[in-house]
Formats: sequence, structure tokens, C-alpha cells
Amino acid sequence: MGTTQLESVPEPKYWHLRTVLTEALDSEFAVGEILPNERDLAARFGVARATLRQALEQLELEGRLQRRRGVGTTVAPPRMGVAVGTEQHAWPGTGEDAWQAVDCTLAEPPASVAEALETDREQAVHTVRRTRMTHGQPVAAELLYIPESSVPELTAIDAPSGAARARAVLRELHRLELEGSEGAVELGSANAGDAKELDRLPGAPVLVVTTRYLAGGRTAALSVATYRADTCRLTFGDSGGVEIHQGPEQRAS
Amino acid sequence: MGTTQLESVPEPKYWHLRTVLTEALDSEFAVGEILPNERDLAARFGVARATLRQALEQLELEGRLQRRRGVGTTVAPPRMGVAVGTEQHAWPGTGEDAWQAVDCTLAEPPASVAEALETDREQAVHTVRRTRMTHGQPVAAELLYIPESSVPELTAIDAPSGAARARAVLRELHRLELEGSEGAVELGSANAGDAKELDRLPGAPVLVVTTRYLAGGRTAALSVATYRADTCRLTFGDSGGVEIHQGPEQRAS
Repeated sequence: MGTTQLESVPEPKYWHLRTVLTEALDSEFAVGEILPNERDLAARFGVARATLRQALEQLELEGRLQRRRGVGTTVAPPRMGVAVGTEQHAWPGTGEDAWQAVDCTLAEPPASVAEALETDREQAVHTVRRTRMTHGQPVAAELLYIPESSVPELTAIDAPSGAARARAVLRELHRLELEGSEGAVELGSANAGDAKELDRLPGAPVLVVTTRYLAGGRTAALSVATYRADTCRLTFGDSGGVEIHQGPEQRAS
Repeated sequence: MGTTQLESVPEPKYWHLRTVLTEALDSEFAVGEILPNERDLAARFGVARATLRQALEQLELEGRLQRRRGVGTTVAPPRMGVAVGTEQHAWPGTGEDAWQAVDCTLAEPPASVAEALETDREQAVHTVRRTRMTHGQPVAAELLYIPESSVPELTAIDAPSGAARARAVLRELHRLELEGSEGAVELGSANAGDAKELDRLPGAPVLVVTTRYLAGGRTAALSVATYRADTCRLTFGDSGGVEIHQGPEQRAS
């Protein structure tokens, strides 16, 4: 990485620096390599520290860099393809499910969840918390909302709490006939709880996948899953997804 | 919105301010309403302008606010559900397609595209540029890469350029039998070209949907579509998607 003066460029400096850094990452750095410190990088490229930080944040957003306290800034591996299985039509918690149940509570749901479930706000909802692990790393945190009316024969006696309770609720849910599911993905930011589970700071960008499971002509369960946007690429369709490494600079002709 | 002093809160100030602002947006502001200016907002909440800006940026990322030059900061309408049709298995440009062809060029593809298409870098690829409009607004920009070998009978004589050329290439593509498609969605940032088409600034967060179309046992076309992350929620599955308004604050129990 040689010295490049960016003074004369008309586009925002950080944006040009981002492009220059992207090229350097492609040609000179290996995955996992630690970048020089900010002071040295700023000096080499002839930019202010603030400009450098803006470019580094951009590259972190794009999944090219990872910044971890105590380690520094490293070159990120390609994002993991994580199947969101829009076509398998299976209940959560069945078969080859990559999710681990953490706990389960019974409470009144947030207003938006009650609305999506088409239940009264007063009707208690089981909330199963699950974590999705890939290669030993947490990649997603999920809240799965199941109205009491979806699992009417569940008793409080057996498995009263924790992961065992979560599994008992899911077993009851699986007795219903799944009629279909529909989902949506959008950009969000990690709240404090998600951030902790995903080993991120609050506010970190996440991909939020909302899935509605239909049974008996109504919504029997609602999943809100939060995926790390820095490390994950969500795949759907016939196979494991497209292997193209997706940086915007590679779409320019 | 009353005065709230945030001095004593241990979490990052901007993050707490974001939560307070979210509640104010829910209870006191209507969609489309213009927020007070930054100086007044900062004074009311007892925070520095920098902290306020950080919170506003966060809320813009979450789709709650829109900031436009010459207008100011307004309360955003709920995100639009935009179907990414992972189950319809149709060629791009057929039927009820929401995309408009803009132009078409023939050139050597970027290295990553050649790799995904499993073609030699030297093999020329038709690149069809399309725009997706919803309610008169551009919501996505797409580059659709079609190797010459997918449309061998295309002649240069008829429709030599522009949108007509793009449509001629798509018509030829539709003669192949589509065997399936697979896709992925991930977070990216708008490059200069996408940003212009989407009426955003370069670097704005986007959802990048990559779709590989399979025919004759190989990749016959590759689509890289860039959706505005601030205004779009990508839906898939049996129907038009889940209507829950998805702010992370609503997932907290």
C-alpha cells in the first residue's frame, strides 16, 4: 500500500479512500491479516483520521473488514451463506434445524406482535428464544412468538422453564398441520439483547427475517430472527446459494 | 416532546436518545411530518449535536426517518413490501415483471461475475441494466449478466442498442428452459451508479439480492439487484409478506 494523496479528488474523500482500500485488500492482504494502525494508515493515504475511520466503517458494513477490541482491524473472510429455507415449509425446531432453544417465557406480547398474530394484547404468548450457531459462532438470535391458543394442551407441570420448556412448546406446536409460511427480510439494528447474543455492539446492522407460520387458517407462530449483517449472506432457493463474492465495486463495469 | 436530560444514563447516549426518539415518533408524530431542526432537538434532549446526529442516522438506518436535502428530516412511512419472488421460477422480464429495461451493453464482465457464470473472463457478456419502480419511485437497480453463449442466435442487426436491445436479449433468453434459480440477500452499500438511480448518496445502505438462473445444467444468467434498504422490506413465500412493522424496540419484551 503506497502513499496516495487524495486531496484533488472531487467525490467524498472517504468514499474514494474506501475504493482505494478495497483494491489494496484484494491485492495485498490475506483473510485474517491485521491492518496497520489508524495513525499509520491515515499517514500513508494522506487523509485525516476521521476520514480513515469513515472508510473503515464503510468497509466493515460491506463485510470486508472486522474490527474487534483488543485485536484491531482484520481482513474479513467471505460472508457465510446461511440458508433461510423459504421453501422447506417446516415448523421451527424440526429436523435438521440449526437453531438451539435457549429459554421460554409466557407473557403479554409487544403490541406489534399481538397485531401480527391477530390476538388480543391481553392473550399471553409463549416466547421461545433461540440462537443459531454456525462453525461455533452465533450468527442469529430469534424470538419465536407462539400464542397459547396454538398449543392448548401444553401443561405447566412438565418442563416448567428454560430450554426444556422451549422444546416442550415446540413439540406441541408440531402437532398442528403447517399450511404455509411467508417471510420478509429487512435492515435493522441490534438491540441490547440481540447485540449481546451476537457478540456485537448495540446498533450494529442486522438483517431481520420475519416469518409467519400459518395453520388452521390463522397465524400459529411468528418468528423474528436477527442475523449479523457483517458476516452473513442469507441464501434461498434450490441449493446453497450463489457463491459470488458480492462487493459493489465488483458490479461496476 | 419534553426536555429529557440524558447525562446520567450508562449506555451510549446516542443509543438511549434513539430509544427516546422512537417513542416520541410513535406517540407524537405523524408519517410525513417534519421534525424540528437539529439545534432545537439537541437543546430539548440536552445532548450535543453530534449525539443527536448519530441517533438520527440510526433511525434513518432503521427506516423510521428520512432525511432529504432541502426538506429536512421527516417521519418515514412504513417500509414497502417488495416481493423478491423466490418461488415463481420465471425468467427475468416475463409476465408481471415490475422491472423496466434501461439499456444493454456487451463487454468483458468483472472477474467475480465471470467466476459466478463459470465463463472465461474473455467471453463477452450482455449486461442488461434494469430499474424497478414502485408507486413511481425507484426501489431497486439491477445488472443482469447474460453470457453470449446463453443467447447464441441473437443478431446485432435488430435493436442494436438501448432498452430495445435489452428486450431483444431477454426475448432470446426466454427461449431456454429454466431449470431453477437460487439467490442470496446481503447488506451492501450503493456505488455511485446505483446511488444515482436510487436517488441516494453513494455509500447508502442497500440490500443486494443476487440470483443465479440455471438452464442446460449451467448458469444462464446472473442478476445483481440493489434495493434501497431504508424504504424496502423484501418479501418471499406464499403471499405478500408479513405486515408487522419491524422495529427492534418492538421485539424487546
